[in-house]
Amino acid sequence: MSKLKIYPFGGVGEIGSNMTIFETTNHIVIIDYGILFPYDDFFDINYLIPDTSQINQDKEVTLFVTHGHEDHIGAIPHIVRDIPKLKILAPEFATVLIRAKLERRKLSKEITVYDHTDEFKFDEFTLHPIHVTHSIPQTHGLVFHSPEFSTLFISDFKYDENPLFEDKFDLLKIKKLMNSSQKTLAMMDSTNILNHGKTLSESELSPDLTKIISRKQRTFITLFSSNFYRVKNILEIAKANKRTIVPIGRSIHFYLAAAEKSGLIKLADYNIKELDSIDNPESPNNLFIVTGSQGEYLGASRRIISGEQKHLKLKEDDIFVFSSKPIPGNEKQIYRLFNQIAEVGAEVITYKEQQVHASGHPCQEDLHAIIKEINPDYYIPIHGETYFLRKHIEFINTNYSKIETLFLTNFTGVELKQDSLSIIAFEQTQPHLIHGDDLIIERERISERRKLANNGLVIISLNHQKVNINIETRGLPNMIQDYIPKLRDLVEYCAYEENKKRDYDYKTEQVRIKTRTFLNSILGYKPITIVQMV
Amino acid sequence: MSKLKIYPFGGVGEIGSNMTIFETTNHIVIIDYGILFPYDDFFDINYLIPDTSQINQDKEVTLFVTHGHEDHIGAIPHIVRDIPKLKILAPEFATVLIRAKLERRKLSKEITVYDHTDEFKFDEFTLHPIHVTHSIPQTHGLVFHSPEFSTLFISDFKYDENPLFEDKFDLLKIKKLMNSSQKTLAMMDSTNILNHGKTLSESELSPDLTKIISRKQRTFITLFSSNFYRVKNILEIAKANKRTIVPIGRSIHFYLAAAEKSGLIKLADYNIKELDSIDNPESPNNLFIVTGSQGEYLGASRRIISGEQKHLKLKEDDIFVFSSKPIPGNEKQIYRLFNQIAEVGAEVITYKEQQVHASGHPCQEDLHAIIKEINPDYYIPIHGETYFLRKHIEFINTNYSKIETLFLTNFTGVELKQDSLSIIAFEQTQPHLIHGDDLIIERERISERRKLANNGLVIISLNHQKVNINIETRGLPNMIQDYIPKLRDLVEYCAYEENKKRDYDYKTEQVRIKTRTFLNSILGYKPITIVQMV
Repeated sequence: MSKLKIYPFGGVGEIGSNMTIFETTNHIVIIDYGILFPYDDFFDINYLIPDTSQINQDKEVTLFVTHGHEDHIGAIPHIVRDIPKLKILAPEFATVLIRAKLERRKLSKEITVYDHTDEFKFDEFTLHPIHVTHSIPQTHGLVFHSPEFSTLFISDFKYDENPLFEDKFDLLKIKKLMNSSQKTLAMMDSTNILNHGKTLSESELSPDLTKIISRKQRTFITLFSSNFYRVKNILEIAKANKRTIVPIGRSIHFYLAAAEKSGLIKLADYNIKELDSIDNPESPNNLFIVTGSQGEYLGASRRIISGEQKHLKLKEDDIFVFSSKPIPGNEKQIYRLFNQIAEVGAEVITYKEQQVHASGHPCQEDLHAIIKEINPDYYIPIHGETYFLRKHIEFINTNYSKIETLFLTNFTGVELKQDSLSIIAFEQTQPHLIHGDDLIIERERISERRKLANNGLVIISLNHQKVNINIETRGLPNMIQDYIPKLRDLVEYCAYEENKKRDYDYKTEQVRIKTRTFLNSILGYKPITIVQMV
Repeated sequence: MSKLKIYPFGGVGEIGSNMTIFETTNHIVIIDYGILFPYDDFFDINYLIPDTSQINQDKEVTLFVTHGHEDHIGAIPHIVRDIPKLKILAPEFATVLIRAKLERRKLSKEITVYDHTDEFKFDEFTLHPIHVTHSIPQTHGLVFHSPEFSTLFISDFKYDENPLFEDKFDLLKIKKLMNSSQKTLAMMDSTNILNHGKTLSESELSPDLTKIISRKQRTFITLFSSNFYRVKNILEIAKANKRTIVPIGRSIHFYLAAAEKSGLIKLADYNIKELDSIDNPESPNNLFIVTGSQGEYLGASRRIISGEQKHLKLKEDDIFVFSSKPIPGNEKQIYRLFNQIAEVGAEVITYKEQQVHASGHPCQEDLHAIIKEINPDYYIPIHGETYFLRKHIEFINTNYSKIETLFLTNFTGVELKQDSLSIIAFEQTQPHLIHGDDLIIERERISERRKLANNGLVIISLNHQKVNINIETRGLPNMIQDYIPKLRDLVEYCAYEENKKRDYDYKTEQVRIKTRTFLNSILGYKPITIVQMV
């Protein structure tokens, strides 16, 4: 009988929807259950979640949450419904975030708060949470330990030896645990594997941020609100410079409140004002912390820059700081913001001009620093698209010829047999698309939406008894209206003369075909055509 | 009376749809008339073209084409229809490309072929075409010259001192013309203004391309087919290595034929085979030159990599070379290809690993090399989004304090008065969206398409005389079908009982409102609802 299986159902072969399972004799331990943000051509689809139908619910099922990012906790309301007996372990800050999600859906669920001093037994293994540094407070890796075999699993981290407001990455604990095991496996983050060198420490941003904030021009800083220690650093620098801090956007308010609830900050210590309560929005003393660093349509940054935000217009002597980096796919919408700021003549500062952003993931030198201390027998790259996983494998093979690398994507895994690992495979299932009120929508329905958008729509209804025809279009050029009388004649002839004696279905199908052919001759494409006869 | 006005109607404040007008006493000289590729949320809209309604057609109108890229020639069929008396001047290669466009639409139009030895009089000005280097053969800048005032205009170029198959950038001629004028203005390319250093010469790619092609593994190279000298370089290296060359994709065949027609190549000199005529597609001797380097859905690269190309499946020991760089916005779809290649285990080579791509635009050092030779009095950045134009202005101001910089976006311009330039402005008009058979589609119609895609659709038709209801949905989750009987009851009650005595319009509107409210309670959003009563 197998002592240990490790298999990802999400997050390996893609960025997002992280979910990796550690299965022991009596336990299923799910590490994170996150969402994947859809490709931009999925039309308002909120997110994707990994399919859980292959989880063995005969065993005890525990969800261990490493940290509070959406790609690690975002899908929890779904798994809470799907696996009622689930136990949840999470750090304090993530717990506050998860509870907000559950409350919004009127779901109740107990969550056990853990910290890095805790440990959890799963048959002969012990899960040791490890304090690591990342771009959200209270992030954890873990060592799944037994004297015979131990696994280091850290899906998201940066190797920060000089972080702000928290302890440095706990390499000592990792080393101690891994070195007390006969065989070891390491599973680590592939996000920045193409980058040589070291990721900037969060503390290395302070000089440039201080330089900018001390300029006392009206300043906007946009960043991920969940990057709370960076937010706190900005608050500290603003305080030292006696600036008025004005947070704008739903998520910055949410994370500030969550951080206070988790004991990470006392907001009363800072001069934080609401936009509608400040006397002079124009004052050069105002420092706005705004959401929407990725150029999101609903983000405060886009609203302010495009002039849609009430009582707040960008001016020529403003500074707009992007304390962020474009996520691939968002470049265009972010450049649109840069262009609009440039039209006003205000100053744009990005990570390219000054040190205003540090990644939350390790570069090659950071991985070296950890690997050389633990010398694992096996290595599996995680947290990355397939291309990055392959590059990560190459990186290990090139630099550590003694380490055996294993390439996993979602629904493959490894099984510990005697003292060696072998590959196992599950049925590949597609993640579910979630839309509207937590509802699953099928892929065929999305492709119907795409066809409507790409081809436009014509709707024709006919009265069966007497000549009565109603034609409407959506998304077709205005000039098509000139052809509607002719189309009406054509439909009338087709339905009430040519095919008079035929049944409903035949008539409607003939009308549909004739309409599409007619419109194609004018437009050069066939709109989606829906004909109803009543 | 004004001697000279210069004003862009496209290409300044955006990348694409290039169109700049030089207006003299009796002449309108339009430099290029290109298309802008739409943002990705425009649903199959083919392209955008600048509005020409403000062109003064009382004067002689000439279109001077600098080179054959789509963002410079793509909209010509439209202007040929809109301005029948238009004269067209174009280089040989661009002429072949333009003629193909016109023929496809059954339009006929004379085109005068020019080369860099020609000159054209427009009142007291002479237009001198200048041979420049770029990423398509036969690219030209121009000096619009008079002894009093001359303008150097080069919207697309790289400063290549060692190009392949063509002369180097003709700085000497620029220098001679500009130095024989009292006052001068330079208008140059902003594409790479954020990059220090020098753009790679096209010839600097030969070593790495040779290394790759001499490996004699089955190799795929994807690049822009219009970058013909690079294609020719690959053909030459392939020939030296006795490789069989197999072009795949519509555009590579098109440009190869166009290049032969223009006398740029003799295809019979190379071992070029069609995919369906080679004996062994698996042969390691095959070198495939394929389209779709930007990951386009219809491109050969995506088809091959996703396994959709007949008789050609990617294998583990293949090499796939991206001799290209992602255009912002395409990163995600290109990474999807990298991931799929990585899944097969084949090797991906990009410009990050080896010197397999050189930009067609100048970096800062290239601009320095030109500016220091001509020392213009005025400078206007062109060919770039607003953010890049601003950065270009900063670059000139920082390095050349004596040059007066002017910031133009579309529909602003400069007028020569006495011997100084002043700013003029036109009415700002939106570019037209072109869809289907060269038809203009209105922005409101596109937003109807977006609403259909984002919300899904329900169509209800009712018979006025008797109870007969037809309900169909598109793009809604399958589970909604469970609620259709209930919706039908609701519609029946609303139309045939509650509002029995009301008129058509009132009834249909009531049905629409009730339907949307009902569906919103299930879905969490309101689908587009169309109700017809006949």
